[in-house]
Amino acid sequence: VTRVLVTGATGFIGRQTLAPLRERGFEVHATARTPPSETDEVVWHAADLLSAGTPERLIAEVQPTHLLHMAWNAEPGRYWTTPENLAWAQATFALYRAFAEAGGRRAVGAGTCAEYDWSHAVCREGVTPLAPATLYGAAKQGVGALLCAYGAAHGPSTAWGRVFFLYGPHEHPNRLVPAVIRGLLAGERVAVTHGRQVRDFMHVADVGAAFATLVAREDVQGAVNVASGEPISLRELIGTISARLSGGDLVDFGARPVPEGEPAVLLADARRLRDEAGFSPRFDLPSGLDDAIAWWREHS
Amino acid sequence: VTRVLVTGATGFIGRQTLAPLRERGFEVHATARTPPSETDEVVWHAADLLSAGTPERLIAEVQPTHLLHMAWNAEPGRYWTTPENLAWAQATFALYRAFAEAGGRRAVGAGTCAEYDWSHAVCREGVTPLAPATLYGAAKQGVGALLCAYGAAHGPSTAWGRVFFLYGPHEHPNRLVPAVIRGLLAGERVAVTHGRQVRDFMHVADVGAAFATLVAREDVQGAVNVASGEPISLRELIGTISARLSGGDLVDFGARPVPEGEPAVLLADARRLRDEAGFSPRFDLPSGLDDAIAWWREHS
Repeated sequence: VTRVLVTGATGFIGRQTLAPLRERGFEVHATARTPPSETDEVVWHAADLLSAGTPERLIAEVQPTHLLHMAWNAEPGRYWTTPENLAWAQATFALYRAFAEAGGRRAVGAGTCAEYDWSHAVCREGVTPLAPATLYGAAKQGVGALLCAYGAAHGPSTAWGRVFFLYGPHEHPNRLVPAVIRGLLAGERVAVTHGRQVRDFMHVADVGAAFATLVAREDVQGAVNVASGEPISLRELIGTISARLSGGDLVDFGARPVPEGEPAVLLADARRLRDEAGFSPRFDLPSGLDDAIAWWREHS
Repeated sequence: VTRVLVTGATGFIGRQTLAPLRERGFEVHATARTPPSETDEVVWHAADLLSAGTPERLIAEVQPTHLLHMAWNAEPGRYWTTPENLAWAQATFALYRAFAEAGGRRAVGAGTCAEYDWSHAVCREGVTPLAPATLYGAAKQGVGALLCAYGAAHGPSTAWGRVFFLYGPHEHPNRLVPAVIRGLLAGERVAVTHGRQVRDFMHVADVGAAFATLVAREDVQGAVNVASGEPISLRELIGTISARLSGGDLVDFGARPVPEGEPAVLLADARRLRDEAGFSPRFDLPSGLDDAIAWWREHS
């Protein structure tokens, strides 16, 4: 039996990994501080991974062959700098070490584009220098590098999915895509930056499916960008939303300053995910935004 | 009172930090799995930092204002790849976190030149890319980057001393400098590589004193190379030893292959240590080697 333990399984990305993992034939065990009441063919375990001894107890209890570790502090605005980054790094080592020592076969963790040196416009695994500018980026970079080096030397087979920009159901309502959709759905004016920033956006369901692919593809080790590989300007992204909601004249481009430290261009080389892991996203940007708009129509 | 807790205090470098810390007025507490019987104005604590809960208990017991964390697996040959690197990373986070949460003022940890991308001949803090090729390097790099980012965001003031090449009393007898000295003292032939590798060597007493300086200089934060800044070829290093022991024709240069992955040139930019931290080494290479030779005369 292949049994995967998914941490952070009620999170924005984590919740999107469960169905694709089941479809791949995994027995899915999932942890969250507060599991949902409906079980949906998933075995839930209530657990606070930051509590000492809990990671080790979970591994002993579930005895997973595969580990997908998505849990981390993701509180918007705070996660870049919160002291909890250190606690999560420590808990991640505890979890991974218990998994490795129990003979676990495959581990996948969630990294971030914030591990890269953002002065390089395009981020490529193993090529673009890593130079995180934030505590969150430093924590993810340090943890990911150590886990991948450990896995390469001693096993388990280990991959580290670096997440870029994403959107979709259950996103925090204050973030860019939901803020624009909700504003326009309410018929309000929406203040945004000049919009000339170029980014890589992926629908969260594809991000979740990509992580499920990484769990299954044990031959793919090390860092893998989880991204579409398709550059888009924020102006075009917002324009596409606006066109679908007939909100053209409600968007005020340039009404907000670009936050300090935001690079003009931040893109992912997505060839490892596509060619080595063989992953194809289900959504393109128009269909993905339609899905997000439909969800926010129901949930705002 | 300023009270420093030194971990790994019986180690090759750790033992050399105690006297300079006392000279700077610190009340010195030191940990080791097996403390020495003579106390030498140091308060010793027997502790296995890899045992769960021990780092936290030590901090609570000693209540240090300053932390100098030198403990790690340093077993020659094995430390590059041992799975214990993960355990040490985890223990280091536990120790640092307990220290930070208890309001500790200043923390210094021990990094390594193996954090740098060795394809760059000269390693400069904040400039030369970090790209460790080993599990040990990845563990040190990840831990150092996270601790420095944490300290910069939340305190304590944190520095990370990256150690280059060193020699002196209590070095493992199989390592290069002791092997050459012991061989020549015994009148045996000594087989070495071609010796054209260029490195940065520092006497371990100076390395220890540099760490003591970093502990005291709370204004110096982040990574600091702990090195002499003086390039020397292994041929010149070995030749200097040989000249002092009149062993000229006993050294067989080229009798051993250069280990795979060893760069031709690996040097440190030592300006941060010298100019920002204000550290001056006590030994130059000739006087340092004389000291090492004298020690090995007594101990081999």
